Amino acid sequence: MTPVTDEPLRIAMLAPVTWPLPPEGYGPWEKCVWTLTEELVARGHKVTLFAAAGSRSSAELVSTVPHPFECWPRAEGQATARLDPASGLLVGPPDLRAWEQLHIATCMEAVRFGTFDVVHSHLHVHALVFSRLIPCPMVSSLHGAAWVKALHPIFDRYRDQPYVALSEAEKQLKPDLHYVATVHNGVRLEDFPLSTEKEDYLLFAGRMSPEKGPAEAIQIARLAGRPLRLAGMIEPQHEEYFNARVRAHLDDKWVTYLGCLSQRELAEQYRRAAAVLFPIHWCEPCSWVGIEAQASGTPIIGTRLGYLPELVRDGETGFLVDTIEQAARAVDRLDEIDPRACRANVEARFSAQTMAEGYEAVFRRLAGRTAEPAPRELAGQPA
Amino acid sequence: MTPVTDEPLRIAMLAPVTWPLPPEGYGPWEKCVWTLTEELVARGHKVTLFAAAGSRSSAELVSTVPHPFECWPRAEGQATARLDPASGLLVGPPDLRAWEQLHIATCMEAVRFGTFDVVHSHLHVHALVFSRLIPCPMVSSLHGAAWVKALHPIFDRYRDQPYVALSEAEKQLKPDLHYVATVHNGVRLEDFPLSTEKEDYLLFAGRMSPEKGPAEAIQIARLAGRPLRLAGMIEPQHEEYFNARVRAHLDDKWVTYLGCLSQRELAEQYRRAAAVLFPIHWCEPCSWVGIEAQASGTPIIGTRLGYLPELVRDGETGFLVDTIEQAARAVDRLDEIDPRACRANVEARFSAQTMAEGYEAVFRRLAGRTAEPAPRELAGQPA
Repeated sequence: MTPVTDEPLRIAMLAPVTWPLPPEGYGPWEKCVWTLTEELVARGHKVTLFAAAGSRSSAELVSTVPHPFECWPRAEGQATARLDPASGLLVGPPDLRAWEQLHIATCMEAVRFGTFDVVHSHLHVHALVFSRLIPCPMVSSLHGAAWVKALHPIFDRYRDQPYVALSEAEKQLKPDLHYVATVHNGVRLEDFPLSTEKEDYLLFAGRMSPEKGPAEAIQIARLAGRPLRLAGMIEPQHEEYFNARVRAHLDDKWVTYLGCLSQRELAEQYRRAAAVLFPIHWCEPCSWVGIEAQASGTPIIGTRLGYLPELVRDGETGFLVDTIEQAARAVDRLDEIDPRACRANVEARFSAQTMAEGYEAVFRRLAGRTAEPAPRELAGQPA
Repeated sequence: MTPVTDEPLRIAMLAPVTWPLPPEGYGPWEKCVWTLTEELVARGHKVTLFAAAGSRSSAELVSTVPHPFECWPRAEGQATARLDPASGLLVGPPDLRAWEQLHIATCMEAVRFGTFDVVHSHLHVHALVFSRLIPCPMVSSLHGAAWVKALHPIFDRYRDQPYVALSEAEKQLKPDLHYVATVHNGVRLEDFPLSTEKEDYLLFAGRMSPEKGPAEAIQIARLAGRPLRLAGMIEPQHEEYFNARVRAHLDDKWVTYLGCLSQRELAEQYRRAAAVLFPIHWCEPCSWVGIEAQASGTPIIGTRLGYLPELVRDGETGFLVDTIEQAARAVDRLDEIDPRACRANVEARFSAQTMAEGYEAVFRRLAGRTAEPAPRELAGQPA
């Protein structure tokens, strides 16, 4: 950790509340917020973290919602709405939308009546709607949210607010926003130690959704004649896809599904894998999978899409491909890759420290500015 | 209309955006906002109305969302989320939650940078989360929202904000809020002319949901030996209820379903009905049905619950009952009711004018006050 050379910054960190901080398994946005917060505190900044109860942090923690949404007590979360004769009220599941709004408002009220240099929001449009009502600048990390076209009209109204893209590629999802920096996600290097001893299997890690390409990973492994392990969560909307395109191929020998692993278990898989397959179909802004695998000294074979050309040095830390056949042929060239080059790549550009330095520079540039309204935007008509 | 005796008020009127203003058929909250706004403008106040495009108003209209949510173009609203290869974006239905937030934020930004005496919100918790960030008071009409117990923790955080209940009964849904007034809904008397000539049939009007009691209305009409007409929308979540408890009894002679009527069609039904049955099971805050029926000179036979004891003068403008049998016996006593007494009741206490006078008094009391934060509420921990 590097001591701050300038005055410490007073940062209001607005986390998502879907998972606790740090997340146990899945939770890429929360992982970014937690890692960044720990690093900023270590560097001497005064960070106030607004997050769900059950989170832990070295920063001052303000718990805004009683449970992370994915950890809400099951009985309460799955209750069916019904008229309760005793109270006369409609009882049912929690209103998570309203809770999230309260979460954001709690941060905005603290910012309004406290003294902060900057708000760092990880809740995109849902926080942006507050951005002109507070006396200090709000910078938003996109986390891929601009992928959802339905949100573009809202982004348009807050186009002039400062944004951080997680990769150069991410900017293409909505090129006309006011980007003040690109800051890659960065891992805690100690959590993903380098290993130069690799086994034979290929690994796919990530949500089991079509745009992530687990089905294509199976095709690649088949063509290359290697065993494949798959790890990652199955979202309800993708169960049908998983059953048809993944589960149908599981045989516990050539193709194995490991379930949704903890960070420690996944680190172990990265460490021993011959390569991580990342045959994505969308503009992946900056997944942790590629970075964590590279930190472990493991090459990536992935689509020339999203942040991969920014992460993978083709032929040196992995291979960028355009087709399944190219990916399979790349498997035969894995002995060209030096695990130490993968590790060095992450140490130089994708560490918690480089991430914190990137955001620190953004915060310093913005600190002290007020959130000026753009008068032409105030007439009320959407652009 | 009464001319203002004091200075005109500058009012930011924050409407719901589910239906256009005025609504064609269903849309009770929108009807309240539209009727009130028209009356306030007629009384000389400067009202800026924040509402969905497609609304009309005598006030200055700021259109915040391109369509009322229930009128969103069908092809767009029912689109399935999918990756669009051309743009690389996830295309799908509009994000109505984000649009509603933008709607509210547009009003809040105008309030912050403009000069308003008061904001009148009809969006309960979703607007309340902005209430401490603006420089003028926000008063919220409840419209029954506190019925939903899941919203209580959010209301608790904004307990000290000023609230208007639509009836004394409504306060029981959440007794510990800071109520500054009770203001009943009020109809435009010209839209519901008095008729003293009644036919034989009974009428049920309202959503076809269990708490409104259409099934009980059928039982009452059967016991009383009268034909029953039912009018009102069927919400998707209540289709099963409707099919089992209502549709099964339709015979186009004794029990008839008229569908979801326009205001004009419904007014015609009120005018000719022997009585309106209102066998509710919940704390109805202030439905338009009872008021409009009474304006038309039509008695109510309804549960001694919600706002009904405030509207119905038992034995004079209708009958308050506790059981289906009592309701059926009340049908035999309908000739005791003078339609003119029903009309006079509404003229005195439930007209657009009395509603506007009620809100005007609230606005005058609040105008000029700033929205003071309650410091103990700012720590971030939910109560």
